[in-house]
Amino acid sequence: MTGPETRPVTGTTLAEVAREAGVSIATASRVLNNSTKVSAEAYRSVCDAASRLGYRRHRAAWGKAHRKMPAIAAVIHAGHHMLFTEPFFARFIGAAELELAQFYIPLLVTSVTGPLIETVGRYLQGGRIDGVIIVSDHGPLPLSGSLATLGLPIVVVGRPLHTSPVSYVDADNRGGARTAVEHLIATGRRAIAHIAAPPDTGAGADRLAGYRDAMRAIGAADTPIAYGDWTQASGVHAMQRLLDQRPALDAVFVASDVMAAGALRCLNRAGRRVPDSVALVGFDDHALAAQVRPALTTVRQPIEEFAAVAVRRLLAMTRGEADDRGGTVLPTQLILRASA
Amino acid sequence: MTGPETRPVTGTTLAEVAREAGVSIATASRVLNNSTKVSAEAYRSVCDAASRLGYRRHRAAWGKAHRKMPAIAAVIHAGHHMLFTEPFFARFIGAAELELAQFYIPLLVTSVTGPLIETVGRYLQGGRIDGVIIVSDHGPLPLSGSLATLGLPIVVVGRPLHTSPVSYVDADNRGGARTAVEHLIATGRRAIAHIAAPPDTGAGADRLAGYRDAMRAIGAADTPIAYGDWTQASGVHAMQRLLDQRPALDAVFVASDVMAAGALRCLNRAGRRVPDSVALVGFDDHALAAQVRPALTTVRQPIEEFAAVAVRRLLAMTRGEADDRGGTVLPTQLILRASA
Repeated sequence: MTGPETRPVTGTTLAEVAREAGVSIATASRVLNNSTKVSAEAYRSVCDAASRLGYRRHRAAWGKAHRKMPAIAAVIHAGHHMLFTEPFFARFIGAAELELAQFYIPLLVTSVTGPLIETVGRYLQGGRIDGVIIVSDHGPLPLSGSLATLGLPIVVVGRPLHTSPVSYVDADNRGGARTAVEHLIATGRRAIAHIAAPPDTGAGADRLAGYRDAMRAIGAADTPIAYGDWTQASGVHAMQRLLDQRPALDAVFVASDVMAAGALRCLNRAGRRVPDSVALVGFDDHALAAQVRPALTTVRQPIEEFAAVAVRRLLAMTRGEADDRGGTVLPTQLILRASA
Repeated sequence: MTGPETRPVTGTTLAEVAREAGVSIATASRVLNNSTKVSAEAYRSVCDAASRLGYRRHRAAWGKAHRKMPAIAAVIHAGHHMLFTEPFFARFIGAAELELAQFYIPLLVTSVTGPLIETVGRYLQGGRIDGVIIVSDHGPLPLSGSLATLGLPIVVVGRPLHTSPVSYVDADNRGGARTAVEHLIATGRRAIAHIAAPPDTGAGADRLAGYRDAMRAIGAADTPIAYGDWTQASGVHAMQRLLDQRPALDAVFVASDVMAAGALRCLNRAGRRVPDSVALVGFDDHALAAQVRPALTTVRQPIEEFAAVAVRRLLAMTRGEADDRGGTVLPTQLILRASA
């Protein structure tokens, strides 16, 4: 592997670069350290001079000097496609970046599934990452289970389904779902179906449980459920299956806004008016909830707060100032709009 | 900073974990190395046993063992928001991940702007990253200029605007833009405007130059230009400015599909039919180009091929098998649809 060790490191000094560029050594140093406090002219002349003279910084030395800055990785246990289609990730990563930026720490994001899981696990063992935020962990082989034995500070976003004690931040998915369905009941709906998220995720399992709690409370015998995979297309198909099986349904609680947007498209195509014929409630309160017509009544989860709590907790763990197990559960809030 | 060195490492052995879990040592090892070749039951019992016994892997040792696996980072010189709104990034990152996955190397993605640039520069000097792909580099202080002096293998996606010699992969933006405008001319349009991307990016500057080439070739005296910032909203506003200044325009070449989608919304609102009243051509051939109505005629740039070329070149550089300067320019292709 190429590095300063194997590369021919020229004898060129910073002073020579500064002289060649016609700037002070301090300015040359600021440029080569990516400081933004330099003029474009100085920047260009220093970079050109450095490249003409074949100047190379000594990474090893720099490495030691900056080793104290922790490297934080967000490992998204989901396919790359989900990362860009489910707004949860953009919101969470953006907020985590913002929080880390206050401490001048960059966030390294990687999304993993299948065989790459083993690779990422090995990478995290390489001692080049000091703290990990695991997002969207799921399935029979959750990342958090085995990574917990790394002795690396880890915060999991979303309740882990396995029993190993880890540090996590979650939203009150079960309570939020129950409140959503109770709202449908309070507004006179009785034939209430549920479009569920994958039950091998804490969010999917808990939102389904919340739906069942509320239906059980009114002694509802019929609780029609169709499962989606978080995508809008799966919301369309799940809604179609429910309409085929239960044409008389008068409300649907959907486990995510994106799937709810799909359900809405399906209902519009089927000529079922929302909310008059079918009331619809989503979950997340992403921007699209307010953009679709009719605007979605949904359950807001504090994703930005999630990120801030997870980051602060992880940084405290990297300093040995926080326990490496135990969860924080943030409240959710029902947001009333036009769809229910 | 917490790490295996400062954490109390228990004396628990892998054999004890395996015994506690009631599985073979080989199975316990596979689980703790995140192999997916284990049953969910074995996975759970080993993780639980490891956590009960407080088993900790010795990261340092692992580190050495796996140090040979290069760590590749994609540094996006853009705000986090762009990362999730301009489809270029999702397509590029997805393709780069796919290419790296063949070598079992994860891709670490970070987006940087403003003060974080200095931080990321420092991080890259820390010796924890072995190769960097710089995407969407721009502005008076491009990342590629100063990072080139790190002695770290770097491939820049998009022609760098500064003069320092670096290794880059680019599309034929100028040729593609010229072809797009020549198509408008060949179909009888003459009052052709351009919605340009930021000229401090290679793509923005080259697509603008291609537009000017084609207009100069027909001796067009009037070349109305409005600048956008890659966002759809900026496309709406740029189109509105052009309509106010040149109500007689009969065609617009837009430097990106996302901005073109905004221009299309503006033209629809203004009651200008596309393509009858105004012909519209975009650039990129993202999925949305085929989804908007009328579907966009656009210039396809081979983003997936980009990613493959950049990754292969970078990996060769980390092995010292490729030169660290010189560019590869990939051809573009005019895709004819309904809008022009």
